[in-house]
Amino acid sequence: MKRTTYCGLITEQYLHQEVTLAGWVNKRRDHGGLIFVDLRDRAGIMQIVFNPDFDKQAHATAHELRSEFVILVKGKVIRRDDKLINKNIATGEFELQVTSLTILNKSKALPFALDEDLADEDTRLKYRYLDLRRPEMQKKLQLRNDILFTTREFFHKDGFIDVETPILTKNTMEGAREFIVPSRVHEHNFYSLPQSPQMYKQLLMAAGFDKYMQIARCFRDEDLRADRQPEFTQLDLEMSFIEEDDIIGVIDNYIKTLLKKVSNIDVQIPFKRISYDYAFSNFGSDKPDLRFDLKIQDFSSLFINTELKFLKTVVANGGKVGGLHVSGKVYSRSELLAWVDAAVKFGAKGLLWIRFNEDCKHESPVSNFLPDNFFEQVKEICPTLQAGDTIFLIAGEYEDAWTLLGRLRLELAQDLKIIPEHELNFSWVVDFPMFEYNKDDKRWYSKHHPFTSPQAGWENLEQKDIKARAYDIVLNGVELGGGSIRIHDSVIQKKIFNMIGMTDEVAQNYFDFLLESQELGYPPLGGIAIGIDRFVMLLTGSKSIREVIAFPKNQRGYDPMMKAPSEVEEQKLELYRLKYLPKKNK
Amino acid sequence: MKRTTYCGLITEQYLHQEVTLAGWVNKRRDHGGLIFVDLRDRAGIMQIVFNPDFDKQAHATAHELRSEFVILVKGKVIRRDDKLINKNIATGEFELQVTSLTILNKSKALPFALDEDLADEDTRLKYRYLDLRRPEMQKKLQLRNDILFTTREFFHKDGFIDVETPILTKNTMEGAREFIVPSRVHEHNFYSLPQSPQMYKQLLMAAGFDKYMQIARCFRDEDLRADRQPEFTQLDLEMSFIEEDDIIGVIDNYIKTLLKKVSNIDVQIPFKRISYDYAFSNFGSDKPDLRFDLKIQDFSSLFINTELKFLKTVVANGGKVGGLHVSGKVYSRSELLAWVDAAVKFGAKGLLWIRFNEDCKHESPVSNFLPDNFFEQVKEICPTLQAGDTIFLIAGEYEDAWTLLGRLRLELAQDLKIIPEHELNFSWVVDFPMFEYNKDDKRWYSKHHPFTSPQAGWENLEQKDIKARAYDIVLNGVELGGGSIRIHDSVIQKKIFNMIGMTDEVAQNYFDFLLESQELGYPPLGGIAIGIDRFVMLLTGSKSIREVIAFPKNQRGYDPMMKAPSEVEEQKLELYRLKYLPKKNK
Repeated sequence: MKRTTYCGLITEQYLHQEVTLAGWVNKRRDHGGLIFVDLRDRAGIMQIVFNPDFDKQAHATAHELRSEFVILVKGKVIRRDDKLINKNIATGEFELQVTSLTILNKSKALPFALDEDLADEDTRLKYRYLDLRRPEMQKKLQLRNDILFTTREFFHKDGFIDVETPILTKNTMEGAREFIVPSRVHEHNFYSLPQSPQMYKQLLMAAGFDKYMQIARCFRDEDLRADRQPEFTQLDLEMSFIEEDDIIGVIDNYIKTLLKKVSNIDVQIPFKRISYDYAFSNFGSDKPDLRFDLKIQDFSSLFINTELKFLKTVVANGGKVGGLHVSGKVYSRSELLAWVDAAVKFGAKGLLWIRFNEDCKHESPVSNFLPDNFFEQVKEICPTLQAGDTIFLIAGEYEDAWTLLGRLRLELAQDLKIIPEHELNFSWVVDFPMFEYNKDDKRWYSKHHPFTSPQAGWENLEQKDIKARAYDIVLNGVELGGGSIRIHDSVIQKKIFNMIGMTDEVAQNYFDFLLESQELGYPPLGGIAIGIDRFVMLLTGSKSIREVIAFPKNQRGYDPMMKAPSEVEEQKLELYRLKYLPKKNK
Repeated sequence: MKRTTYCGLITEQYLHQEVTLAGWVNKRRDHGGLIFVDLRDRAGIMQIVFNPDFDKQAHATAHELRSEFVILVKGKVIRRDDKLINKNIATGEFELQVTSLTILNKSKALPFALDEDLADEDTRLKYRYLDLRRPEMQKKLQLRNDILFTTREFFHKDGFIDVETPILTKNTMEGAREFIVPSRVHEHNFYSLPQSPQMYKQLLMAAGFDKYMQIARCFRDEDLRADRQPEFTQLDLEMSFIEEDDIIGVIDNYIKTLLKKVSNIDVQIPFKRISYDYAFSNFGSDKPDLRFDLKIQDFSSLFINTELKFLKTVVANGGKVGGLHVSGKVYSRSELLAWVDAAVKFGAKGLLWIRFNEDCKHESPVSNFLPDNFFEQVKEICPTLQAGDTIFLIAGEYEDAWTLLGRLRLELAQDLKIIPEHELNFSWVVDFPMFEYNKDDKRWYSKHHPFTSPQAGWENLEQKDIKARAYDIVLNGVELGGGSIRIHDSVIQKKIFNMIGMTDEVAQNYFDFLLESQELGYPPLGGIAIGIDRFVMLLTGSKSIREVIAFPKNQRGYDPMMKAPSEVEEQKLELYRLKYLPKKNK
């Protein structure tokens, strides 16, 4: 007796025919001497009926059935009585008169019901194979599968070559974020797990492959933040003899094709491009959510001669006063106080609110220090200002203040419910700064990575003014991916290494193969990487990437099902010529 | 100035048109004041011509060109003179009159010429990006790309879901062969890199995904044998509610479809199936090369009453005398002695040869001890025996003797040149023993793995007699892959664990999640894994899997390009609460 079709596929065409189905007992109901079972398989649910008139033996055995028993049944498909039709399931017009039943495997009571909304993620992860039986999880992984395939199909047809690059690779500069893997053969030597196949894809261009793609597994051993996983998946691309427009064009097309194929969604391309400076000055972020407006505005000019000493000092010292203008909602005092608390919570030293009353008079903790015509002053900056509106101000150094305002912008918008949740708003952020300064260790770092090409004219500029040939793609305020045109000239490469404080000796030590390859026929090149986990998360409306990864680690990098990572006996460590130091934590 | 097409794609349709090409200087020849360059890109080679009449500047700059310079050229496609047509390249009828030249990057002299046959593999690997510029390497990776895509397409269309399983996973029983990865967050705890996604794919069946596939990266930290890599790629499949025939059928179809699509090769399916016992008794191997016959035969009956004490003892003690009968070549004495040496080299205690002369008289080091009618005796076993033929005998315990004969069979066949090299001979080996005994540590091991289902009736058999529901697919004497129907019942699973000496406690410790899942609605299931590296190697006629991996390690697991693995400072190790033990080797 072998399965002949899937539960979820029973349609008119099977009517009055004999079929054999296999699956899980989703639910059992006994009614008037009959036993009704909702049988579930990957394609859906089918009602099957045990009646001693159809088969005595099957009906008798059916009394043993419990939830999640795995069974095989044979029977005839019939149409249900009109009043018994279940419109909630695709097969709801039909049922199966069972003439033969085999119990393939029993099931104990599950630790949780599949339709239960489990708050405790560790329990879900411990029993991930049960959690994944839920229809919504099945759908998410099915969509992920479709995205993976459609992605590969798109690039395959476009002439990209899929090359598998190594997982056991060489440690790089950013050592602290890399997983290391001890070698038994080479004592005291370690492989590293790659954070990305960056070097390999550049070398593939040096090898002349011209267009490379891979859906690559990458690894990052960092202190686990909200929604990071120690391993993640990225779509990785590289092309030779191209410019920014080529990469951006390929990705625009890819996303349009993908969304049409997997979700039947139409998006307009080309996606808009905005500069980093524009993004940051208007939205306080390099990955702005453009589904709504609410731009940050510069109110500094109003505070050059203010009586408010704090603001005056900030502006006098080259700082700025930025603000957000909220219209359409009149905040209560307690709401305004709550926003001050919220701003402080995410790092602001303070948040100044000014509400304009019905008569356009300002109300604020600092009202006494504001001029009488403050409404008119603000209106010059915010032409749509009207009675009942509020402005929120944060002052400080430009980067700091605007970053906080960017965060506040998102939270205000969420509260105002002005974000069109089902819109997919893609945009490119371009013209990034090449470097960023770290105040703590007082040195310059690459904003992207040190293989990124600087924009023309860089030789005559200071680090802070050099722009990179880099581009990020942003979806609904989330950075989906980013890339750049790379450096292909070893002389420039060395200079850029130097500019982030890497000596020639260190550069040679870590990147000799790269520098040498750049002197042996290295083509102009560029590429991009797109985070697949995040992309699937956004497309499925999931709250976390853990929802779209089959077997994720929890937020402490732990797998409660397999219990990984786990202890290794000291004896085994000796194979690697390693031993434990006493634990530090706990 | 942007590339408009590829060198290798210039055809009639471009005649008299202006095109822009980019690529590498493959060769430069100066002739009669003109400069001819073979320009190479991923698609092929195009001859480009610099003539001061076309463009003075370009011609002047062309004098700088050296091998592997990266250039961009514009010009008009013209037809060559008839006598200058190069039939060796696809574009040989055409050449480009260059009107504009840009040198995109220079190149120093390469450490080796691309058309040089480099013996030293480490040099090839150190400059892998140069090695990969060779057309044959480009072709191999291109074919690998086609195989990867066609494989995914086949299974996608057939309803398999591609699921990415973790690389950072849990250590298993076979700890010594696993790479381990220390965790910084969980001190003294390690992840392991998977030897295969076995547990995950079984759990995906428990989750109801029904048909799973993945092209999975796997890892094995073993002492490096001839042609192994620490990481490798396998096509990994699992299905629910199926039998052996279903998996075998899917793979037959897959291989037929794949070969047709990527290489336009027709193969007949179903591939033949032979039992393990048949394979071993006839070919001394569980992965016999069936492209030629030369079966092992059992000559024991001739030596029950022999005067040859050694053979008599072997047979009396339950051992066997196996042999290979070679016809069609008359070996010289020195050749026969060389075969004895060869057999000893690969582990035989001795090799007995008996050559039948023109008059069918036997000639052998033991001739004196053989009966006069030995030819007739042998002829009863080898009906085609004739004058000039030789038989080679090895005696010993059945498994040992036949394994050596299996090896000898391959070497003899190679020497006899009776292997049709271009044939692709696929076969399935089925009915494997469930367990194998290890004489060294005197215990039973799983022949495949302990999740393999035993064949019906196993409860009443001794370990040595139990057969497994396992199947291997063999191509030209190489094991391409293997799989099995798995155990889906926790009671049987525990018994099988016990039978390989695993206590319930250890089983619970390592496999609690598996045993529990088998009690929570676990379907009957089975699957297979196919080694992609080996498959591509065989299809491209390569000698090593390193030829079909973009960036392989060398035979000592080392990457001479990136210099991985490499040392890690003791200070970094402390992050993992680890320190070095003194080195043991060297």
